[in-house]
Amino acid sequence: MFLIQRCLCSLNNKAELLKIICASGCPRFSTSAKMSKKFKNARRIEGLGSNVWVEFFNLSAHPSIVNLGQGQPDISPPAHIKEELAKVSAIDSMNQYTRGFGHPSLVQALSSLYENFYGRSIDPNHETIVTVGGYGSLFNAIQGLVNEEEEVIIVEPFFDCYEPMIKMAGAIPVSLPLRLKPTKGKDWTSASWILDLEELESKFSSKTKALIINTPHNPTGKIFSKEELQGIADLCIKYDIICISDEVYEWLVYTGRKHTKIATLPGMWERTITIGSAGKTFSVTGWKLGWSIGPKNLIRQMQIVQQNVIYTCATPLQEALARAFWYEIKQLNDPQCYFYSLPRELEGKRDRIIQLLQKIGLNPIIPEGGYFVIADVSVLNIDLSEMKEDGCYDYKFVKWMIKNKKLSAIPVTAFCSKYKKEFEKYVRFCFIKQDSTLDAFEKIIKNWTKKS
Amino acid sequence: MFLIQRCLCSLNNKAELLKIICASGCPRFSTSAKMSKKFKNARRIEGLGSNVWVEFFNLSAHPSIVNLGQGQPDISPPAHIKEELAKVSAIDSMNQYTRGFGHPSLVQALSSLYENFYGRSIDPNHETIVTVGGYGSLFNAIQGLVNEEEEVIIVEPFFDCYEPMIKMAGAIPVSLPLRLKPTKGKDWTSASWILDLEELESKFSSKTKALIINTPHNPTGKIFSKEELQGIADLCIKYDIICISDEVYEWLVYTGRKHTKIATLPGMWERTITIGSAGKTFSVTGWKLGWSIGPKNLIRQMQIVQQNVIYTCATPLQEALARAFWYEIKQLNDPQCYFYSLPRELEGKRDRIIQLLQKIGLNPIIPEGGYFVIADVSVLNIDLSEMKEDGCYDYKFVKWMIKNKKLSAIPVTAFCSKYKKEFEKYVRFCFIKQDSTLDAFEKIIKNWTKKS
Ligand SMILES: Cc1ncc(COP(=O)(O)O)c(C=O)c1O
Ligand SMILES: Cc1ncc(COP(=O)(O)O)c(C=O)c1O
Repeated sequence: MFLIQRCLCSLNNKAELLKIICASGCPRFSTSAKMSKKFKNARRIEGLGSNVWVEFFNLSAHPSIVNLGQGQPDISPPAHIKEELAKVSAIDSMNQYTRGFGHPSLVQALSSLYENFYGRSIDPNHETIVTVGGYGSLFNAIQGLVNEEEEVIIVEPFFDCYEPMIKMAGAIPVSLPLRLKPTKGKDWTSASWILDLEELESKFSSKTKALIINTPHNPTGKIFSKEELQGIADLCIKYDIICISDEVYEWLVYTGRKHTKIATLPGMWERTITIGSAGKTFSVTGWKLGWSIGPKNLIRQMQIVQQNVIYTCATPLQEALARAFWYEIKQLNDPQCYFYSLPRELEGKRDRIIQLLQKIGLNPIIPEGGYFVIADVSVLNIDLSEMKEDGCYDYKFVKWMIKNKKLSAIPVTAFCSKYKKEFEKYVRFCFIKQDSTLDAFEKIIKNWTKKS
Repeated sequence: MFLIQRCLCSLNNKAELLKIICASGCPRFSTSAKMSKKFKNARRIEGLGSNVWVEFFNLSAHPSIVNLGQGQPDISPPAHIKEELAKVSAIDSMNQYTRGFGHPSLVQALSSLYENFYGRSIDPNHETIVTVGGYGSLFNAIQGLVNEEEEVIIVEPFFDCYEPMIKMAGAIPVSLPLRLKPTKGKDWTSASWILDLEELESKFSSKTKALIINTPHNPTGKIFSKEELQGIADLCIKYDIICISDEVYEWLVYTGRKHTKIATLPGMWERTITIGSAGKTFSVTGWKLGWSIGPKNLIRQMQIVQQNVIYTCATPLQEALARAFWYEIKQLNDPQCYFYSLPRELEGKRDRIIQLLQKIGLNPIIPEGGYFVIADVSVLNIDLSEMKEDGCYDYKFVKWMIKNKKLSAIPVTAFCSKYKKEFEKYVRFCFIKQDSTLDAFEKIIKNWTKKS
């Protein structure tokens, strides 16, 4: 047997031969085929390989394409935050490890800032944690608190990582959809998307451990009203579950609407983890810093996960972010504060993109928050028969649009699981874009209307 | 029943009362006690709460303490890497999301650099991944490849996160110790620590999935020789397992020794994930960037984990790191290259710290790599009876030393699990410290010798 292997191997390359020599005396000889079988993915990531961002990052990479896909600001971040990073980079100690659960000056800034909005004091060391983006906070919360076989309720469409993160923890995502309930005589806005509380309650079971909500909501722009949040809170309390509130777009709220933190509703502080993101707050998505605020016993579990996943986040970015926060905290009552000036700037962009989408016959649903707008693209009646591949309507449409209009967006079913059918006619456009990008978009729209 | 709750609650604060009102009609009412029971940690992090860095970070925080504990350089990082970060921070697009598995210019730099050392081409997109430090690479590898109930072999003392990371994946750490085999007539060096291959083989079972090695080794400074690595490689091939090679100290190799990558041994590329760290390579531990190099099918599983944990690492740091790499790649044959100048600088510090430790009667084991030195402190015969708490000798000793000598170090049993007894007399001192820190250390030593 060993001889046969030897003979076979002499046909192969030198490395293979050497392998034989090294493995001589070895009763089990590993062929590539065998290896690849043994070296496959761990079960916990089975089926979690596809990712909309990876796919559309590549599809939209060509410079000729106007990219309103991924939520990637191409406007300038505030000058002061970039300058602080430059300054901090020169300080030796700021290039070394810092406290694992959050750089001291940053957790101090977070607690000072948020105390204003929670109406309670926040212990920087025990009631906050700094994570790798809002993403890292979601991961730490799920891994730290949810057991295998437990259920987590999510609302479709959801930020796409919720479902695989729950599955990676061996837990079970249980979803329900937002449902469009237009109010007569009114424009369609993101408030027309309703979370039916009876339907929500029907999703609770003895296995339910947590519920994830997202307000302002990606991709619809819906801002859950205080009344809606109270209804959700009542159910969280009734069924004694944890609420993970993804509020990464908390400042991006347009005229006439107000963001409410579900953690501030009675009885909710002790069961809510509220997630924020530096990327969304300061238009620096590439910094990948986020945080969670919550009660000590919940934050503690996230800290334990953190010390076994990454240990600590980048120090220079944390220090620069802390300084940026202090800068804004000082002008929190001033309209110049970036937390208010950014949504003002974005509201104009929102209105412009909506008008342009209307020009080609779309009827976009006006977002009240966030920086995305979705529209039912099926009203355009585009012939998609040239898009041979299988898949949802919206995927085909976006691929058609990239090919024929050099315009990229994101199919809303990327944010869906069980309810793809309900959303497959919607496409999401991102409007945190500089004027020149919107100009290029306008040009595409003009040509589009000419041809059709 | 509901009435009773109501009465009870009227004694509590307003928030509690409001909670009742909100929860009215709710059959199960959640008291704090009940909540804290339901909201405890997920099972996967049970018992993983303690962390040596968190504990000693606090103990050593006072400025009066000379801290030779955590591997935290207080020397300056190379000027060029700090300058690049300052420059990059001013570029808008470098503050936004980048490719999830590694910023394009960084994976290109990694592949260009390492091709020189692997003697093969490395596909930047499929055979590398950029992670949150070496830590993140370890996590991604274990979560991506190791199933629950499978075994992972580790060598004690080990970098402390190996064991909890394996446990968090529901897998089983199987450990064996390095054993001190002094060679007659020779100084004790880290080469005196031997991994017994027979003992190693006895740890393999049908459940073994992977083995983690670390060379140069933290905390001993041992550099595994090519022959030792060949012996380990033979076993990996024989038992068809994955090798995770933690080489974060790969450049920190002192006169007379050479670092060998186990992945370059015959038959090992296809089963090895090799881990590096920007923190260790450029003395910027606070940047928390690391990477893995390996075959496509193994790296792929790490990529899938990444997209469900953090999605992507910080862009400005990745771009600055890429530029720093290009800077060094150009002078790879020049002794000025930081990869060679840093170990030259550190070798002097190593020798100084060893002499000083010898002055108080210690016999430190000379490290051939890395930036730590360990010494058996029991020879000092310190009376530790004042240290009331339970625990290993080394913990007591370090706490005694912090209190009485204002000097901090790390107990080696922090890196142990089953073999604490074998290592409890050793303490680890870090020597990547500027001269003024070593001067302060010298002062402590002088006073120490005076008094005793
Ligand atoms: C709803 C929502 N949550 C979380 C995130 C992740 O934020 P971060 O980039 O800070 O990880 C995003 C990013 O798009 C998001 O839209
Ligand atoms: C052996 C070893 N592996 C991995 C790491 C983690 O490296 P990083 O800081 O890049 O996550 C360290 C840090 O001390 C280490 O000593």
